[in-house]
Amino acid sequence: MAVGEFVFPELEPIVGIRLGTASAGIKQQEREDLLLVELPQGAACSAVFTRNAFCAAPVTLARQNIKNRPRWLLVNSGNANAGTGHQGMADALETCRTLANLAGCAETQVLPFSTGVIGERLPTDNFKNAIPLALAALSENGWHRAAKSIMTTDTQPKGACKRFHLGGRPTVISGIAKGAGMIHPNMATMLSFIATDAHIDQPALDKCLALAVERSFNRISVDGDTSTNDACVLIATGSGSTPIVEKDTEFFAFTAALQEVCDTLAESIVRDGEGATKLIHVVVEDADSEQEALDVAKTVAGSSLVKTAFYASDPNWGRILAAVGRAGLEHFDIGRVAIWLDDVQIVCNGGVAPEYTESAGQTVMSREEIKVRIVLARGRCSCRVLSCDLSYDYVRINSDYRT
Amino acid sequence: MAVGEFVFPELEPIVGIRLGTASAGIKQQEREDLLLVELPQGAACSAVFTRNAFCAAPVTLARQNIKNRPRWLLVNSGNANAGTGHQGMADALETCRTLANLAGCAETQVLPFSTGVIGERLPTDNFKNAIPLALAALSENGWHRAAKSIMTTDTQPKGACKRFHLGGRPTVISGIAKGAGMIHPNMATMLSFIATDAHIDQPALDKCLALAVERSFNRISVDGDTSTNDACVLIATGSGSTPIVEKDTEFFAFTAALQEVCDTLAESIVRDGEGATKLIHVVVEDADSEQEALDVAKTVAGSSLVKTAFYASDPNWGRILAAVGRAGLEHFDIGRVAIWLDDVQIVCNGGVAPEYTESAGQTVMSREEIKVRIVLARGRCSCRVLSCDLSYDYVRINSDYRT
Repeated sequence: MAVGEFVFPELEPIVGIRLGTASAGIKQQEREDLLLVELPQGAACSAVFTRNAFCAAPVTLARQNIKNRPRWLLVNSGNANAGTGHQGMADALETCRTLANLAGCAETQVLPFSTGVIGERLPTDNFKNAIPLALAALSENGWHRAAKSIMTTDTQPKGACKRFHLGGRPTVISGIAKGAGMIHPNMATMLSFIATDAHIDQPALDKCLALAVERSFNRISVDGDTSTNDACVLIATGSGSTPIVEKDTEFFAFTAALQEVCDTLAESIVRDGEGATKLIHVVVEDADSEQEALDVAKTVAGSSLVKTAFYASDPNWGRILAAVGRAGLEHFDIGRVAIWLDDVQIVCNGGVAPEYTESAGQTVMSREEIKVRIVLARGRCSCRVLSCDLSYDYVRINSDYRT
Repeated sequence: MAVGEFVFPELEPIVGIRLGTASAGIKQQEREDLLLVELPQGAACSAVFTRNAFCAAPVTLARQNIKNRPRWLLVNSGNANAGTGHQGMADALETCRTLANLAGCAETQVLPFSTGVIGERLPTDNFKNAIPLALAALSENGWHRAAKSIMTTDTQPKGACKRFHLGGRPTVISGIAKGAGMIHPNMATMLSFIATDAHIDQPALDKCLALAVERSFNRISVDGDTSTNDACVLIATGSGSTPIVEKDTEFFAFTAALQEVCDTLAESIVRDGEGATKLIHVVVEDADSEQEALDVAKTVAGSSLVKTAFYASDPNWGRILAAVGRAGLEHFDIGRVAIWLDDVQIVCNGGVAPEYTESAGQTVMSREEIKVRIVLARGRCSCRVLSCDLSYDYVRINSDYRT
């Protein structure tokens, strides 16, 4: 079950970016689970990878190959090729080679991505059969099918598109993502592929992706675990004119547009979080630094007790305040903290707000989307983290998986 | 439901320590929910309190009064007197004054402790009625009733006792605790009261309590939340001879015995954790530093995914390895990690162990008590953290609480 209505948006094609899907039968038959993304010659490509030291073979390989002006993304769902050791690396290399031979590029220009079960060998033969099919299916209009092909326990495909003007020229960013839990059972979770027709130089592209990811995908919490396979890729195909560099006005305009796309994708991941019945915006204001705001927001967003309270529609301000209190702030006077649930003030000066009534709190808590606003009264910094509730279904999904 | 069989041990009285309980009707009628502990004149008293910045009024007051050679502990369950602001402090002061007047000591010599619902006013009138009853019930044999009176969502009273020789003299340490979740709904959770007839000077007492707490109560994880009311108190009544000071042989002997008592109490808290069906010993070995061992152990012990895998008896080594991988170790080669579930090796060189079979893993995972041993191959430091699984009942207990 996902929170709210999911409508897959119209994703505008990016000239030169073609996507092709096929059924490789990796975990299930009859389901498209292989995706190829073709990058035009000369496209810039940037990526952010999981910080987990236990990262999958394809992550290691993609991290290396990103430097070689990649021409292809080779993505599969159903198997994460993680925890597979030397064999896993050999298998990832083999699939890249298969594609490179068929597509006529160097195998080091293929970036592999895998999502699915950990610890099982990648069925490379299935790739050999399916890659030609996916090549035959390549199309600039393949975004929707691509979004569906990378799903694992996601219940909905996820996409976002932004049209805007950059230096007077119409520009577009299209992207897809998959998530489910921040990490699933032995699912290795988040993947996102984004492309734009803007022309941006490599350092600027790296910078704006890092910024946008930090403020979107790195500010969502389903269960606090980070996956072995997480990756977000950004491709810029633009050419001709002078590229955008880091200090241009266009750089900021592009980063803002990219941020919107990443925010939308990140929010859909939380809305479709494992067992989620509610979307929770945790907003921290008046912190002394952005880091401090983040520390508080992430502690609240990640608290199992806060999350179960939301599941139960229980306006339990004590749990929220207790989470704020253990966020590790120095010289912190909790007696100045105020907290709102949407428009209802529940905490004032570190205690229950005088005007607060249980019925007002109850009304807010029964909503499907709730904003928790925490005002620290220490400075001028703020941030927002997205979370969802912790339900019976989270336990069911994560304990039934292999049984 | 608690893990394993609970037998409340015979707690040996400590001469001079008297305990009295009474029904104050704070949350429920007909249940003993008030506890007085009398300390003999001259007893040394040490305490460790929650690090949560949002701490309850009684915590603030007890932290102040501990310096005044306290004569009484005044404990109630059912109401945490947390998030109650100035009124909460006034109420805590009033209950201390009531006891001081009846018992004939200074009100600053009373340490108040409260555990229960957050954000509701402490019913001070109930204290006025019940304190005389508890005074009348004072007895050196009151430990078992005391352990029961401080329970909230605990299903079992918790106690531990250690008899040993210190400098040739028979010595005893007796203690009780309550827990349930590390923090419950709006329950403010852990309390422990321990006493000994050893004679120890104040700095040495502070030191050995800090050491023992750090390696016991600070190494358990039910849900990762830390409470607003946690406290652990140690009373040493011994007199006559020269007190033990920090560098004595006796100091180390005493600390070891205290450690045993704290370990037992801490383990019973986890066994009786909210919704717990399994006890998990997370042991990390061959780390480069104790901090590093702790970082890994706490990340694994606190992972919702690892905990649901244990609930499902799923030997999901990928989840454990992924948790190890995100513990933040520097220059970490996960390819050297080995992991055992009891006597079954599941991970070797960062991948599934060659001899491992799913059925062997399954056999271990169906046990009620499981040791996860993680060998990092980086150094010689090790540590142990206790955890429990994450079950449907955890969600039920924490979401049904107020509905």
